[in-house]
Amino acid sequence: MKVLFGIVGVLAASAVVLGLAKPRSPSPEPPGGALGTRVFVVERNNQAMSVYDFGERRLVGRVAGLGNLQHATMTFSRDLRWGFVASRGGLLSRVNLATLAVEGQVKTSEDSIDIAISQDGRFLATAEYRPGGVTILDVATLAVAKRIPACVEREGRALWSRATGIVDAPGNRFVCTLIEEAEVWVIDASKPDFPIERKIKLEGGEPYDAMITPDGRWYVVGHLESSDVSVIDLTQPERTPTRVSLLVPGKAYDKGRPAKLPHLACWAMARGRLFVPMVGDKKLVVLDPATWKVIGSIDLKGNPVYAVRMPGDREIWVSFSGEEDDAYLQAIDAETLEVKRTWRVGARIYHIDFTPRGSHALVSANKENKLFLLDTSTYGVVDEEAIDAPSGVFGVWRAFVIGL
Amino acid sequence: MKVLFGIVGVLAASAVVLGLAKPRSPSPEPPGGALGTRVFVVERNNQAMSVYDFGERRLVGRVAGLGNLQHATMTFSRDLRWGFVASRGGLLSRVNLATLAVEGQVKTSEDSIDIAISQDGRFLATAEYRPGGVTILDVATLAVAKRIPACVEREGRALWSRATGIVDAPGNRFVCTLIEEAEVWVIDASKPDFPIERKIKLEGGEPYDAMITPDGRWYVVGHLESSDVSVIDLTQPERTPTRVSLLVPGKAYDKGRPAKLPHLACWAMARGRLFVPMVGDKKLVVLDPATWKVIGSIDLKGNPVYAVRMPGDREIWVSFSGEEDDAYLQAIDAETLEVKRTWRVGARIYHIDFTPRGSHALVSANKENKLFLLDTSTYGVVDEEAIDAPSGVFGVWRAFVIGL
Repeated sequence: MKVLFGIVGVLAASAVVLGLAKPRSPSPEPPGGALGTRVFVVERNNQAMSVYDFGERRLVGRVAGLGNLQHATMTFSRDLRWGFVASRGGLLSRVNLATLAVEGQVKTSEDSIDIAISQDGRFLATAEYRPGGVTILDVATLAVAKRIPACVEREGRALWSRATGIVDAPGNRFVCTLIEEAEVWVIDASKPDFPIERKIKLEGGEPYDAMITPDGRWYVVGHLESSDVSVIDLTQPERTPTRVSLLVPGKAYDKGRPAKLPHLACWAMARGRLFVPMVGDKKLVVLDPATWKVIGSIDLKGNPVYAVRMPGDREIWVSFSGEEDDAYLQAIDAETLEVKRTWRVGARIYHIDFTPRGSHALVSANKENKLFLLDTSTYGVVDEEAIDAPSGVFGVWRAFVIGL
Repeated sequence: MKVLFGIVGVLAASAVVLGLAKPRSPSPEPPGGALGTRVFVVERNNQAMSVYDFGERRLVGRVAGLGNLQHATMTFSRDLRWGFVASRGGLLSRVNLATLAVEGQVKTSEDSIDIAISQDGRFLATAEYRPGGVTILDVATLAVAKRIPACVEREGRALWSRATGIVDAPGNRFVCTLIEEAEVWVIDASKPDFPIERKIKLEGGEPYDAMITPDGRWYVVGHLESSDVSVIDLTQPERTPTRVSLLVPGKAYDKGRPAKLPHLACWAMARGRLFVPMVGDKKLVVLDPATWKVIGSIDLKGNPVYAVRMPGDREIWVSFSGEEDDAYLQAIDAETLEVKRTWRVGARIYHIDFTPRGSHALVSANKENKLFLLDTSTYGVVDEEAIDAPSGVFGVWRAFVIGL
């Protein structure tokens, strides 16, 4: 009943609530498998997600009507009651993780790009492109707790910024990046009015994406058309951001073609080092986050997209763009920095995620219309499921990880 | 029905099955709160565990009849169907996490000390004192998959070893320590007969406890009456273990009184450093795991017992032994290595655990008969619950962490 009251509250309080799936009576047991092994897989073209249980090795359900999922992200409540899906169209959906029913939808903006949940589990924040800014929602009721428009007056004109790269950070903060304004905001989600505790100016070109390191310390912002990133130490945010070059020292670069970066969520941290995919350079660059110096680089098969740390820190798995390479993975030894293995999984790999203790990996192959389960000790496929144009893969264990 | 079949299988296959709680029809919803915020708290003297939901801030249930819980550990299945409690008396209980019913018990030995779950989620392993060795059980059925007695013949006599410090390790291995035999075993849980893949001899006094670092790389063994530990690099287990001194270089020590170590599960790893509580020395010693050298030490209020890393790597919280100090915690800044705060929580603190993203901490105060929930941003108590002589605190999110 609690949930129902919450939803009614939203309906009464806000005109932006779009629809509400009929509350189903809860199933006596989850529809299949159990909560901990459940993985949501974006069906990129269908406004839907398939739900896979990697323990039972089968699809256990599907959630539809989620809006444009061309760049969708999903986050989970710490009690594992809910998953939250942010669509590109500004639609936020709340999914009951046990029944897979959509129990509440809110349109927070015309165009949203990212979502985060506060460390105390009470609030969601969406980073929005249009109108630019951040919307903060109450997890329990989906009511809008605060809207923070990213709009400044400049020479008599309102300048709106797109917001992106929103994450939770230690101290119950949200951190995000404003693109046009070239600013990082630190928002205090412990205070009732969600004050912007700090605005940090960025130099050196339009920022386009950001990430937080898994230790919760560093917030890293990428700049368009630049091989530099801005690094903010969240334990000392008052300091000027450090400007870090990702170019390998001593290497000659074609000046007309800066080494492009993919989305920053694709960086991996293992054994205290950061592994950064360098698009256009066919390399994984290795940084020491203590000094933010490049300490090495690894030649790859193709242009890397994702670098993902295997739990246990032994390997980094890399995916690629381009038809010639995008069916392949490479496993990099995190200690020797050598390529340990190169193998074909399936056409157009979009996402890699490991199971929490690292025994298996989930790999979506978009063009192959398949989700693969791999055994990490053999690199072999142990299960595959037909899913239409799969993309992002979101395991419920993300509920317990800073920045996810 | 699956579960029932499993249990019937155990009953038929093994004489050691002791009892079986009547399978209740599953509740339509968990008894209170939801799975992700559920925490099991050992009632040390009652053969029972209280179940607390830190999201709802209330006790939601209790599990009784678990055997002697004087040194109990609990581990969780990756699908969050089950919790497994190993009692001192060799009794292993399987708890349905949704209904809190005990669904299956097996007596694996006369005296067990530790439990681990394989990274592929299929097998449990208990480390046993009497008779010494390891028992491996099938998670789904609780059937004994293998018994590995720790017994060697020496001069015509059978020498039994106690086994302790069992953990899961990358590559679907179990690692444990044999006390009398002074050996570490690496067991391959991917192979049908669970071979002991490697036996590693330890020098320098009887080992008594061990731990794995959270990156899954190092297995550290403590020796009785010694301030040295043996360190095994699990990525190169063929190498001789490194002998590491925990004495602060240059400091004068009373030769007759070696600095004693508590259980090794009390070490914390943060910002790439290891924090080791030194009993009898009132210090937290800081090690660099890259070199295994002591790089610093921190003076504490009393004799430390637990050092626990706050998610986000900002602080280490330390608990103490002795009536004068055991109601206090100290928070150490993980960067400056300074004591940030010293404060009283409740008499005889036995266990500290943080919620996964670090917003709160759970603290059991055994003599005070209380479980406390603290807000880590204010250090203040935000909830307390009366629990009779509480001890270990086990959140279900341990399902997703190597070594827990």
